[in-house]
Amino acid sequence: MNSVNIGLLGLGTVGGGTVNVLTRNAAEIERRVGCPVRIIHAAARDLDKPRICDTGEITLTTDPREVVDNPDVHVIVELIGGDTLAQDLVLRAIAQGKHVVSANKALLAKHGSAIFAAARERGVMVAYEAAVGGGIPIIKALREGLAANRVEWLAGIINGTGNFILTAMRDEGRDFADVLAEAQRLGYAEADPTFDVEGIDAAHKLTLLATIAFGIPLAFEAVYTEGITRISREDVTYAEELGYRIKHLGIARRTPKGIELRVHPTLIPARRLIANVDGVMNAVVVKGDAVGPTLYYGAGAGDEPTASAVVADLVDVARAINCTPESRVPSLGFQPDAIEALPLLPMSEVESAWYLRMQVVDKPGVLAALTSIFADLEISIEAMVQKEPTAGESLVTLVLLTRTVQEQQMDQAMARFGELNFIFGDITRIRVEYLN
Amino acid sequence: MNSVNIGLLGLGTVGGGTVNVLTRNAAEIERRVGCPVRIIHAAARDLDKPRICDTGEITLTTDPREVVDNPDVHVIVELIGGDTLAQDLVLRAIAQGKHVVSANKALLAKHGSAIFAAARERGVMVAYEAAVGGGIPIIKALREGLAANRVEWLAGIINGTGNFILTAMRDEGRDFADVLAEAQRLGYAEADPTFDVEGIDAAHKLTLLATIAFGIPLAFEAVYTEGITRISREDVTYAEELGYRIKHLGIARRTPKGIELRVHPTLIPARRLIANVDGVMNAVVVKGDAVGPTLYYGAGAGDEPTASAVVADLVDVARAINCTPESRVPSLGFQPDAIEALPLLPMSEVESAWYLRMQVVDKPGVLAALTSIFADLEISIEAMVQKEPTAGESLVTLVLLTRTVQEQQMDQAMARFGELNFIFGDITRIRVEYLN
Repeated sequence: MNSVNIGLLGLGTVGGGTVNVLTRNAAEIERRVGCPVRIIHAAARDLDKPRICDTGEITLTTDPREVVDNPDVHVIVELIGGDTLAQDLVLRAIAQGKHVVSANKALLAKHGSAIFAAARERGVMVAYEAAVGGGIPIIKALREGLAANRVEWLAGIINGTGNFILTAMRDEGRDFADVLAEAQRLGYAEADPTFDVEGIDAAHKLTLLATIAFGIPLAFEAVYTEGITRISREDVTYAEELGYRIKHLGIARRTPKGIELRVHPTLIPARRLIANVDGVMNAVVVKGDAVGPTLYYGAGAGDEPTASAVVADLVDVARAINCTPESRVPSLGFQPDAIEALPLLPMSEVESAWYLRMQVVDKPGVLAALTSIFADLEISIEAMVQKEPTAGESLVTLVLLTRTVQEQQMDQAMARFGELNFIFGDITRIRVEYLN
Repeated sequence: MNSVNIGLLGLGTVGGGTVNVLTRNAAEIERRVGCPVRIIHAAARDLDKPRICDTGEITLTTDPREVVDNPDVHVIVELIGGDTLAQDLVLRAIAQGKHVVSANKALLAKHGSAIFAAARERGVMVAYEAAVGGGIPIIKALREGLAANRVEWLAGIINGTGNFILTAMRDEGRDFADVLAEAQRLGYAEADPTFDVEGIDAAHKLTLLATIAFGIPLAFEAVYTEGITRISREDVTYAEELGYRIKHLGIARRTPKGIELRVHPTLIPARRLIANVDGVMNAVVVKGDAVGPTLYYGAGAGDEPTASAVVADLVDVARAINCTPESRVPSLGFQPDAIEALPLLPMSEVESAWYLRMQVVDKPGVLAALTSIFADLEISIEAMVQKEPTAGESLVTLVLLTRTVQEQQMDQAMARFGELNFIFGDITRIRVEYLN
């Protein structure tokens, strides 16, 4: 196949992000798939609206059916939301033998059974990684990565708006209404925030997660749903004092008497990893009987994180229609002829900050000598702590953090320190990484 | 196809775990794949050794070539480790057109290029999810879930032994040698711990991760590797005082001048999620240009966590050879005819602990009345805090944590409390989940 051609319905935040990611990473994606993946046709309600993406190479229309009906389009990406028009268009695409990628959790949680049945009938794929957890590949983890397991339970922070509000209430000791208003100003919450703060959005997502975890029918109506609007800052504070955090969780659990499906504010022990997932970030814990607890963390919303999941689905579809089953995913993730011997950076040129610990004689001029060596080599000190000497000892321990420097600068500093006669024993050096 | 038949090489910890998971979850796995996946032939060095699994249904042999050559075997699972015999057997299986699943990071990091080329030539799959991060589906996340991204960097705690040692050094203020000895007693560290504590095992895993993140050739020899043997408990303590944790990280980073590949002890800010990954658990952070930072967490070793990854690969292979590309992964993860309408538990029967907050009149007998209602309904109190009343106020705030109870018990308690005349206003109730 020469290329996999995409028809895009919706050019809003996620649609724009999808155009941007597919354009910017076209080469990287082709290295993975073995052929180009490109958007050739797109529909938007208003063609004159300013966009976050360049649509120069794409045929635009206000009629989404034109895109669905375009015979050159192999895959339809549905990003218009809602569940009336979206459903019509998805079913129309399937009827024409087109694969579908959708980020529409409401549509799939409520009408997924009919859509998936139609797709099966017609032999096409309907992929929906972007419907839950933004860019986190949680659908893939559940359907494939954990396929060996009988899932016992899963619990997720699956609504970024709610988590942003609860995090700000805790960090800043503010009230719900106050933080909600800020979230609306920042664009993290809709003008009508009901879907997010009342847990309906989370219930849509939980429906999909529970279904693929346990192999049960989609059961959105059965999800118990309670919002976070009645959480007060007192509750947040008292929970903290007791060693807990309040998070808005979607929980699905297998019990001997039946499956639990529930979305509600929840106190969880502060030492749990998921209790430390803050702001608009999402995370899902899945407990499998073989693997034990696993956690998946990432941005739950936003143009490019969500586009990351949409495009991962497109790569999946493209690989399925473009490769043999055995070569679908190349062993090393990239096509064998696309493996590129990029230069490897010698360790001497690697940059990192440093932690240094040394024992020095406790006398005047020592710090001056050390800091002048650092200054000579243009190494900045981030922090320096001098530990009180033990009574009767003439050596003090000095602990330093440097700013980021090249490895060879630090090697030179070490060589210079080696010539000093007031440093006792070896200097301990450990790299520091901020991972941001 | 009637069933996918597995030949297993090695019946040690992971081999035994694989037998146990495939046996226990046979029905769940068949619901996902659409046909049984079963081990029919297995090789072990010593057939009389006691095992963690029941091998009653499996033909056993001491000659692994017998398993590889068995014409009824479709997939070979290589779990014998090392890189001499293992390589011969893997290449022999490929030459016979058999798919291979391996957990052998040393083999693949050093000889993967030849093995993957042979597999490509012969049109078979070589899957290796279990080689990195135990049960965490990190290979799948990188090769598929994040396929839209240009990966900027990744950093992982990818050796459980090292993380167990560093965690114990911090939590218990102990020395490296002391904790290592304990890890050896517990079976977390080998008699010769070099591979783990000197970072060689982590370097094998980093080699695989970096290759599939960037699409570069396997470059194990180029990985800078530094162990944790020289980390002292003082360093752990001082790092903590400065707001950092010491973790043994494998880091791969794309820089304008080249790719960095390095394994070394590293100070990371304590507030980072990965800084809070403790004990034998593993985690990998992957930063993609579209998705931003994502994190994958789970057990990095152990019989069943590793078996979880081995069996996930088997499911992948079985789906590839048993299904059409379009139906490879069913929409809901399970085969459409295997979706089961399990009973859904009514909310009244859901069990959880509770946080309660109420304002009560500050007078004698109030606590007695409350606690006797709890006692009547068999609700145990885990913690109770009475907040000092504001000067001049006659109401005090009472915060309670209960033990786990049925929702209907709590509803009854609320009804009884409603009849009391010393509770002012509404009672706030929030569920508590321990997530363990």
